[in-house]
Amino acid sequence: MTAKRIDLNSDVGESFGVWRRGNDEALMPSLTSASIACGWHGGDPQVMRRTVRLAKAHGVRVGAHPGFPDLLGFGRRPMQLSPGEARDYLLYQIGALWAFIKAEGMRLQHVKPHGALYHMAASDRLLSEAIAGAIAEVDPTLILVGPPGSALLSAGQGAGLRTAQEGFGDRTYNEDGSLVSRSVPGALLTDPDALVDQVLLMIEGKVRAITGRMIPIAVDTVCLHGDTPDAPAFATRLRERLALAGVEAVSLEELLVDQVS
Amino acid sequence: MTAKRIDLNSDVGESFGVWRRGNDEALMPSLTSASIACGWHGGDPQVMRRTVRLAKAHGVRVGAHPGFPDLLGFGRRPMQLSPGEARDYLLYQIGALWAFIKAEGMRLQHVKPHGALYHMAASDRLLSEAIAGAIAEVDPTLILVGPPGSALLSAGQGAGLRTAQEGFGDRTYNEDGSLVSRSVPGALLTDPDALVDQVLLMIEGKVRAITGRMIPIAVDTVCLHGDTPDAPAFATRLRERLALAGVEAVSLEELLVDQVS
Amino acid sequence: MTAKRIDLNSDVGESFGVWRRGNDEALMPSLTSASIACGWHGGDPQVMRRTVRLAKAHGVRVGAHPGFPDLLGFGRRPMQLSPGEARDYLLYQIGALWAFIKAEGMRLQHVKPHGALYHMAASDRLLSEAIAGAIAEVDPTLILVGPPGSALLSAGQGAGLRTAQEGFGDRTYNEDGSLVSRSVPGALLTDPDALVDQVLLMIEGKVRAITGRMIPIAVDTVCLHGDTPDAPAFATRLRERLALAGVEAVSLEELLVDQVS
Amino acid sequence: MTAKRIDLNSDVGESFGVWRRGNDEALMPSLTSASIACGWHGGDPQVMRRTVRLAKAHGVRVGAHPGFPDLLGFGRRPMQLSPGEARDYLLYQIGALWAFIKAEGMRLQHVKPHGALYHMAASDRLLSEAIAGAIAEVDPTLILVGPPGSALLSAGQGAGLRTAQEGFGDRTYNEDGSLVSRSVPGALLTDPDALVDQVLLMIEGKVRAITGRMIPIAVDTVCLHGDTPDAPAFATRLRERLALAGVEAVSLEELLVDQVS
Repeated sequence: MTAKRIDLNSDVGESFGVWRRGNDEALMPSLTSASIACGWHGGDPQVMRRTVRLAKAHGVRVGAHPGFPDLLGFGRRPMQLSPGEARDYLLYQIGALWAFIKAEGMRLQHVKPHGALYHMAASDRLLSEAIAGAIAEVDPTLILVGPPGSALLSAGQGAGLRTAQEGFGDRTYNEDGSLVSRSVPGALLTDPDALVDQVLLMIEGKVRAITGRMIPIAVDTVCLHGDTPDAPAFATRLRERLALAGVEAVSLEELLVDQVS
Repeated sequence: MTAKRIDLNSDVGESFGVWRRGNDEALMPSLTSASIACGWHGGDPQVMRRTVRLAKAHGVRVGAHPGFPDLLGFGRRPMQLSPGEARDYLLYQIGALWAFIKAEGMRLQHVKPHGALYHMAASDRLLSEAIAGAIAEVDPTLILVGPPGSALLSAGQGAGLRTAQEGFGDRTYNEDGSLVSRSVPGALLTDPDALVDQVLLMIEGKVRAITGRMIPIAVDTVCLHGDTPDAPAFATRLRERLALAGVEAVSLEELLVDQVS
Repeated sequence: MTAKRIDLNSDVGESFGVWRRGNDEALMPSLTSASIACGWHGGDPQVMRRTVRLAKAHGVRVGAHPGFPDLLGFGRRPMQLSPGEARDYLLYQIGALWAFIKAEGMRLQHVKPHGALYHMAASDRLLSEAIAGAIAEVDPTLILVGPPGSALLSAGQGAGLRTAQEGFGDRTYNEDGSLVSRSVPGALLTDPDALVDQVLLMIEGKVRAITGRMIPIAVDTVCLHGDTPDAPAFATRLRERLALAGVEAVSLEELLVDQVS
Repeated sequence: MTAKRIDLNSDVGESFGVWRRGNDEALMPSLTSASIACGWHGGDPQVMRRTVRLAKAHGVRVGAHPGFPDLLGFGRRPMQLSPGEARDYLLYQIGALWAFIKAEGMRLQHVKPHGALYHMAASDRLLSEAIAGAIAEVDPTLILVGPPGSALLSAGQGAGLRTAQEGFGDRTYNEDGSLVSRSVPGALLTDPDALVDQVLLMIEGKVRAITGRMIPIAVDTVCLHGDTPDAPAFATRLRERLALAGVEAVSLEELLVDQVS
C-alpha cells in the first residue's frame, strides 16, 4: 500500500520595494514548494533573492510564478495578449528568477502562472500553448502547475512537460470542478477546520461542491494563501493534521518523480 | 607572428514596444559580438527574442547589456544604488536574457553594463564589485566588458572573470585614457574615415588624445554605435578597411580563449 | 446657407524618453485639434510640454488622450478595469496634462480615450460612464470625442458633456457604421486621394461601406494618423482639397459652440 | 500677544495597488495638512482619490508630494535630473493630484518634494529653481514646503511663492540646522515624550542639536511620520500636549495668510 502524499505550495515573494505583502518567513516552514513572483505583478530583484534564500533555508523547492505586466493591478486583471507576447513574457520572468536560483545553488522545480494569467489559461488553448511552449523552451524538465482538467495542463502535456494539478483548500468548487467565483457568497472557506477537512478530502480524490454534492478531483498540490494574518497558523495546523492522517508532505519533484517528462 | 584581431560589438535590442531605436538588422552583419538590452533601460521580451534570433542568424555572439531601472531616462542618468541593489538588478536582467538565449540554443558570452551604470562603475569600486559578483554568481565563465584600466575590469578580475577592454571609435579621449565628456566640443568623431583611423590605431595599442598627444590604450573590442542613420554603412566600411589592414574580426570568446577564467 | 465645417484632429505627443514616434512638427500646422498622450500608453512629461508648446505655436486646440496603464503594449491591448479604476485613471491623466496646458497659458478643449480604451468604451456602457464621469468631475465644459452612435458619446451626453463624433479618413466602415477590423483585408485606405474623398463624403454625412453601399455617418472631427511617413504630406493635401471644396477647418470648440453643455 | 500656532503635516497616500503603507485613517484626524504622494514614488490614482476624500472628511488641507520616477526605490535614491526634467516631472505630478482635488471640490494648498528630491533640493540651487518654477507655473498661490534655510525655500521666494519651513519631531539636528543622517546613531528620536518635547521647543524657535547645544530653528510645520505602528497614538498625544501648552494647530494656509505671495 502506497503512503498518501501531497505537495503544499504557496505564492510567495510578493512584496515590492518598501511595500510588504504576506508573511513568507512564518509560512515557509510549512511548505514543500514555493511559487516566487518574478517582478511583473509583484516581487522585485531583492525580494526574489531573499525569498529564494528563505526557501533554501527551509529545504523548500522553488518555482517561478510569472504574471501579467500589471504591477498596479497585481496581475489580477485580464489582459489580452497575443500568444507570442505571452510566450516571451513567460520566458523573461522565468529567466529572471532562474538567475537567483542559480546564484543560490538551487534548481528551478516548477512554473505556475499567476492571477488572471492562470485563470485565463485554464480555458484558453492558445494562451496555454504559449505558456507551455515557453517553459519547454527554457527547460523541458520543469513541472507546470495548473487547475485539474484545464487547457493549461493539457497544453503542458502536449509540450512534453510534467504537470501538477492544484487544489485550493480555501476556495469552494462548482460541480464541474471549476472554482466558485470570488464574487459569489460562500466562495471562500474561512473556518480553519473546514479548510483542513477539504484538503484531506482532496487527498482522497474528492471535494464537496458548493451545491453539497461530492465530486471527484485529482490534486497533486494544495495552494495555501499567505496573504491573511492567520495563514502561518493555519499552515502549521494543516501539517499536523496531515501527519496524523498519515499523509506525507513532499515536493512536486518527489511526487512526480515517476511521471514521464 | 600573430595576426591582429579585434572584436566589434554594438549595443542592440534597444527598441521598446511600438518604439524603434537603432537599425539592428543592417548593423548585425558587421558585428562579432552584440550587447542586448534587458528590458530595464530599453528592450522588451519580444525585442529580446527578435534580437537574439537576429544575432544567431548572423553568427554573432551575444551578451547582456543591463542598465538602471530608468526606462524614462534610458538608463543614462546616474542613480545611487546600494551594492546589494546593483547586484540583484544585474542578476535579474542577465537571467531574463539568458532565457531567450537558452530558448534559441545559444550561449551567453559576455556582460556589459549600460549607460550611467557603465560610466559610474568605471571609477566606483563597490559598484563594480557588485556587478562582477553578480556575473560570477550566475556564470563565472562569462566575460565582463568595460573601459580599459577601470575599476570595473579590476573588480571582474578580482571575481575571477575574464575581462575585455572596450574602445570607442567615435569618442575622443583625454590624455589619462578616459573619454572626453559629451558636453565638450570635439568629444564626438563624426568623419567616417577619422573613426576608422582611430579604430586602426587602437588595434595598434594607441590613440590620439584630444590634446593631440598619442597615448597608449589596450583594446579587445570596439563599440560601434547603432543609433545614427549611417551606422550600418560605417560598420561595413570599417570591416573592409580592417580586412585590408590584415585585421581579423573575431568574437570576444575567440579573442580571449587563452585568458584564464 | 451655412458653410461646411470640420475639425481635423490627430493623436500626438506619443514619443517616450529617447524613443520618437510620429512627426508632430510636420503634422501640427494642418490640425485644428490635437489629442496629447498623457504618459501611460505613450508620452512623458517632457514630450507633453513640447507638444503643448507646439500646438500653441500653431494655434491648435489641445485635448487629453488618456489610455490604459500599458506602455509596453501602447494601450492597444484590452484590459479589464473596474469602473472605479477607469474613472480614477482618467482623472489622473487629464490632470497631468492640464498642468502643462495651464503652464503654457492654454485651456484644455477635449478628452479622447486612446486605443483599446476607446474601442472598448464604444460599446461598454459602464466603462463609458466612468470615463464621462471623470471628465465631468474635472471640468464639465470639456468635449468628449468618440465614435458616432457609441455608448461613449451617450454616456458623455448623460453626464452633461458636449460630445464630438469622430470619423477616420483612412479606415473603412462596416454597414452598421462600425470600423472594419484592422485584421480584415481592405480595412485601411492607403491611397491619399481615396482618403481625401472619404473625408469629403463624411462632411456630407455619408461614407461608402466596405460592402460598397453608401451609409449615413455624422462626423464633427476627422482623425488624421501621424504615424506614417507621408502623414504630413497627406494632411497638407487634405487641407487644400477642403479649402477648394469650401469646407472650413475649425476647432471642436468653434464647431460645437452652440451645443448645450 | 499672538497665540502660538503650528501646522502638523504628514506624508500620506503612499500605498500602491494591493500594497498598503502607513495608517492614514488613524493619523488624519491629528493633521492640519496632508502631503499626498502622486503615483511616481508611491500612491496610485485610486489611493489618491481615497486619500483626498479622507483629508476632506477631516477638514485637512492637502498638498502634492511629488517624487522621483523610482517606484522600486520609493523615491529615496538620488537621481541626477536636468532642471528641465525636474520641472516637467513636478508639473506632471502636481497636475495629476490637482484633478482629484478638483473632483472632490477642494483646493490644493501646498507642494512638498519627497525623499531624495527633497534632500537634494535642500542644497541644489538649480534643482530648487526648477521645482519652484514648476509650482509657480501651475499656481503661484501654492505654498512650497522645505527645510529651514534651504536652497529650496530660497528658490521658492525667488519665484514669488509663499514658503513654509518644516521641522521633524523625530529627527535630531546638527549644529548647523541640518538633519543628522539616518546612518548616524541617535539620528532618530523614538521616545514619544522626547518627540513632543522637541516639537514644543521648535515652536519656541529652537531645538537641541545632537551635540547638546541649543540652536535656533524657525518652523512653520512639523512633519509627523506615519509609517510606524504607533504614529497615530503619538499624533494624538502631540495634539493634546500642544493644546495644553496653548499652541493652536492650524493649516499652512491659515498660518501663512499674511505672507505676501
